[in-house]
Parts: sequence; C-alpha cells; structure tokens
Amino acid sequence: MAIDAPTASAVDAPADPASGGSLQAIEARLEHLERLVASSRVDPNRMNLLVFEAHRDRLLAAFVMATGAAACGMEVSMFFTFWGTAALKKGGPQFGKKSIVERAFGWMLPGSAGATKLSKMDMCGIGRALMSREMKRKNIADLGELIQTAAELGVKIRVCEMSMQLMGIRREELIDYPNIEFCGVASFVDEAAAANTTLFI
Amino acid sequence: MAIDAPTASAVDAPADPASGGSLQAIEARLEHLERLVASSRVDPNRMNLLVFEAHRDRLLAAFVMATGAAACGMEVSMFFTFWGTAALKKGGPQFGKKSIVERAFGWMLPGSAGATKLSKMDMCGIGRALMSREMKRKNIADLGELIQTAAELGVKIRVCEMSMQLMGIRREELIDYPNIEFCGVASFVDEAAAANTTLFI
Amino acid sequence: MAIDAPTASAVDAPADPASGGSLQAIEARLEHLERLVASSRVDPNRMNLLVFEAHRDRLLAAFVMATGAAACGMEVSMFFTFWGTAALKKGGPQFGKKSIVERAFGWMLPGSAGATKLSKMDMCGIGRALMSREMKRKNIADLGELIQTAAELGVKIRVCEMSMQLMGIRREELIDYPNIEFCGVASFVDEAAAANTTLFI
Repeated sequence: MAIDAPTASAVDAPADPASGGSLQAIEARLEHLERLVASSRVDPNRMNLLVFEAHRDRLLAAFVMATGAAACGMEVSMFFTFWGTAALKKGGPQFGKKSIVERAFGWMLPGSAGATKLSKMDMCGIGRALMSREMKRKNIADLGELIQTAAELGVKIRVCEMSMQLMGIRREELIDYPNIEFCGVASFVDEAAAANTTLFI
Repeated sequence: MAIDAPTASAVDAPADPASGGSLQAIEARLEHLERLVASSRVDPNRMNLLVFEAHRDRLLAAFVMATGAAACGMEVSMFFTFWGTAALKKGGPQFGKKSIVERAFGWMLPGSAGATKLSKMDMCGIGRALMSREMKRKNIADLGELIQTAAELGVKIRVCEMSMQLMGIRREELIDYPNIEFCGVASFVDEAAAANTTLFI
Repeated sequence: MAIDAPTASAVDAPADPASGGSLQAIEARLEHLERLVASSRVDPNRMNLLVFEAHRDRLLAAFVMATGAAACGMEVSMFFTFWGTAALKKGGPQFGKKSIVERAFGWMLPGSAGATKLSKMDMCGIGRALMSREMKRKNIADLGELIQTAAELGVKIRVCEMSMQLMGIRREELIDYPNIEFCGVASFVDEAAAANTTLFI
C-alpha cells in the first residue's frame, strides 16, 4: 500500500497529482508549505509610517492615516526621522547644553507640531491659520486632536536616535506620548519587513 | 492503523515527521495552514498609489507607474488626497456657492492637471513648457495622454472626500474619468491592506 | 475505502473537517494551497527604494535605509528616476552632443551627489556645510561614504532610462557603481511586486 512505501522523489518534489500521493508524500509537501508560509509571513493588518518631513500638511496626512488604520483594527507604528523629529517637540525653551549649531537647528526647525508650516500656501502663517479655521468649521480634527487620538488608539511612536543626535534634540524636549521609543534604522527595517504597508511621508 | 487513531497532540501541533502522521493529523495541519494563508493574503499584483502632491513631476511619476503597472497586468488604484485633489480639476470657472476661503483655495491651487507646476525649475512656467516640449520631441507621453491611457487600462481613481470638503472642491469640477469614486480614509486603508505595493507620492 | 472514492465536492471545496477527508481530497486541498502560496509570494526580506528627489536630506535617508537594510541581510534595490537621476552624476563637464535644453538641465540640476542641496535650511550651502560638519563631528556617515558602503553591501542600483533620455544625461556621466543597470518602469514594477517594502522617496 502506498502509505507504507513512499518514494524518495515524492518527498523531494511535489508529487504528480495523477500518481496518487502517499500519506508520507503528502506530509512532506505539507511541511514544505508550512515552512514557506512561515518564512514569508507579512501582516496585512500592520502599517508602518516613516515621517520624514515636518510640514503641517504631511503630518496631518500621516496622523489621519495612522488613526484611520488603527480605528479599523490595524496595528500602526510611526517612525519619526530627520525633519519629522522636530515636529514631536513640545515647544518651549531648548534644554541642556547645546552647541551653537544645535541651537541654530532649534531656532530654524519648527518648535512643536502646532508651529509646523504648510508645505505650500503657508504665507507666513495666514494660510495655516485659514486652514485650521476651515477644519474647525467643517469638524475635521486638527493635528493636536489627531495626536491625542493616536495615543488613545495605541498607535506606536518611535523616534530616530541618529536624527535626534544630529539635530541636538533632547528626549525631555519631546511631547509626552505613551510608550514613545527611541531607536535606530535597524528597528525601522524590522518593522518594514513585518508590515505589509510602509510609507515614506 | 494510524488513520483511525489520531492523537490529540498531533492535532494541536505539527506532527513529528518521523512519527508517521495520521490522515486526521494532516488534515488538521492543512486546515490551520489554509486559515493562515487566507488571513495573510496580500496580492503582489495590486498597486495602490496615494497622490498627495499636485506637482507636475510627481503626477507624471504617479501616472507613469500606474499605466506601466496596469500594462503589466496589475490592478492599480490611485487615491487622490490633499493638494493632489486639485490636480483632478478639469479647469474652468469654480462651481456652486463657496465661502471666501474655499474660493481662495481655488485661486491658489492648480486649476487643472495641465496647470500644475514642476516642483523645481518651474520658473513661472518656462521650465514646465521646455520640459513638455522636450517630452514631445522625445516621444514621451505627457500628463494628459497618461490620464487617458490610465482610463483605458482600467486604473481606478478614488478621491478623498475630506480633502474635497476642506478645499471646497465640488464633484462637478473634477475631470470626467470612468467610475471615479469618492471615499474616505477607511477605503484607502482597506486597499493598502490588500495591495502589496502602496506608495505615498 | 475513502481513499478510493473521493467525491467531486471534496475536490472543489475544502472538506468538512468532521467528515473525515480522504487522501485524495486532502491532496486536492494541498495542491490548491500550493498554487495560492506560490502566486502570492512576496519576499519580506526585499526592499525596493524609488529615489525621485535629488535633495541631500532625502538621499541621506534613502542610503541610510538601503545600507541599514542590507546590513540586516535584506536584498535592497534602488531605482533612480526623475530628479534623483541627476544625483548619480559623478560631476565634471557634460558629455557628448547635447541640445540646448539638455545643457540647461545640466546647469540647473545638481552636478553630483556631493553638490545636492538640503530641501530646507540650505541657505546657499551654509546649512549644508554646517550639517556635514555636524555629521562628521558626531561620526555619522556622509553621503559619499554611504554610497561606498551600499556598493560593498551589494545594494543594487538601477537608473530610469526615460529620465536619462528626458534630461539628456549620458551613461558616462554617472558614477562608477558595481553592476549599475539601466531600465524602464516595467523593471521597477516587477521589483515592486516581488518586494514587501517599496518606498517613494
């Protein structure tokens, strides 16, 4: 009976369907498939957003997507790097002993999410103010509310340590956000490999 | 015979290959794998492009990718949001009763795809005109032709309702495109979960 | 015996687990699953970066990610298109017979990776120089070193032929990089379908 006499070839390669596979041959194919599925497992319900820019419009897009996805039950992680790092500052005076170049970064970059400019039509703040008013009038959540919602929905925020080091931003200068993490590019890469959707914003 | 006497442990965990799995144990593993594959099903032949900017160069990139992918047999969906929404206007006068801020958006944003500026070297339209001439001379399809081709190849276009509401853009102001849809962030998130490739442009 | 008498329904649909599937029914399900897994195979360890912009900050981000991912054992491919193409020039005089428009592109676009500007705070090169000094002082690899590391780690570089044609850039003008390839959008689309992570930078 076939079950008792599997051939080596049946174990190595998928058996010819017409040949009437034995139980052992089927088991071998099943194992192969299990390994394949385990190795290529990408989670469609995981979203990974790399926030590179600190423009108000891009931050709005990032947080609308993050909160929208989290509300749909997805696991969302945001990685703030380069200019994006500055958008997480809580505002107020600069902390600690900084070099003159680090202080210059502090003056030129947005001091907080609320101080970020639109990438276009900002017009020294007029465009920004008009858009905020328009969002309020139309019941569209503004950046501050979206960050709050993201925290409530469990959106994970991670900040690039190299960017903080480069721009001389201290941890104490960043907003209070539950379980905020500080990490490097390897951590981002791991998340990108695990999540189906990764966006560069 | 093994087929008649499966053990509970064989059902819970993958059977030891050397132990000679029973038919029922194999069936349990198969079912587990089927559920796993069904839950993590991401389509490699599905591309999802989020068009955030309204710069001519980015729109060209978006439509070159969309038509290229569709020509390769992929299922392509484009989601226009924020500034990108304005690029879908067909030009001409603004429709309907609008607030003064909505009218201001209309004046400052591009009036149509043909009126979009390059993100750099636009030089009040000189760079743009030179690039269009160069594309024609070298037989590279321009934006208008690419949108037409996208329609013919069945590229799906969806527009973010929140952006239209925010900027006061009416449906009647948008280009005629087959089966254009209006939807929210949840619809984008669903597409991102189903498609292997999602880009933020 | 069940093995000899499979029913058509068992082949068409997953068998009811309680019904005690036959060997042939199980084989049919296994084959179906094998085809499904083969057709949806996306490699989580493959990263595909589309470099569209030629700003120094974005190029840094792209190469930090590329080298970081390659160092983690991922297979990384970069596709340079539009403005990004100009960042791969090795500098020096323009080659060959060019039209006046092509020459103009050559004057206005960055002449090499080392000549790329920051997207903000460049201040005619002051911001750029300060950032480079700061990176050196803090032992953060600069663009030139990152490109070298990418080459050593086997990061693949492909350049969009249409962009080169449009901007009149000759192959001899590009940096010497191991196995640099010249290709079209179809090649990018194929890579996007095979890689789990594709970013538009």
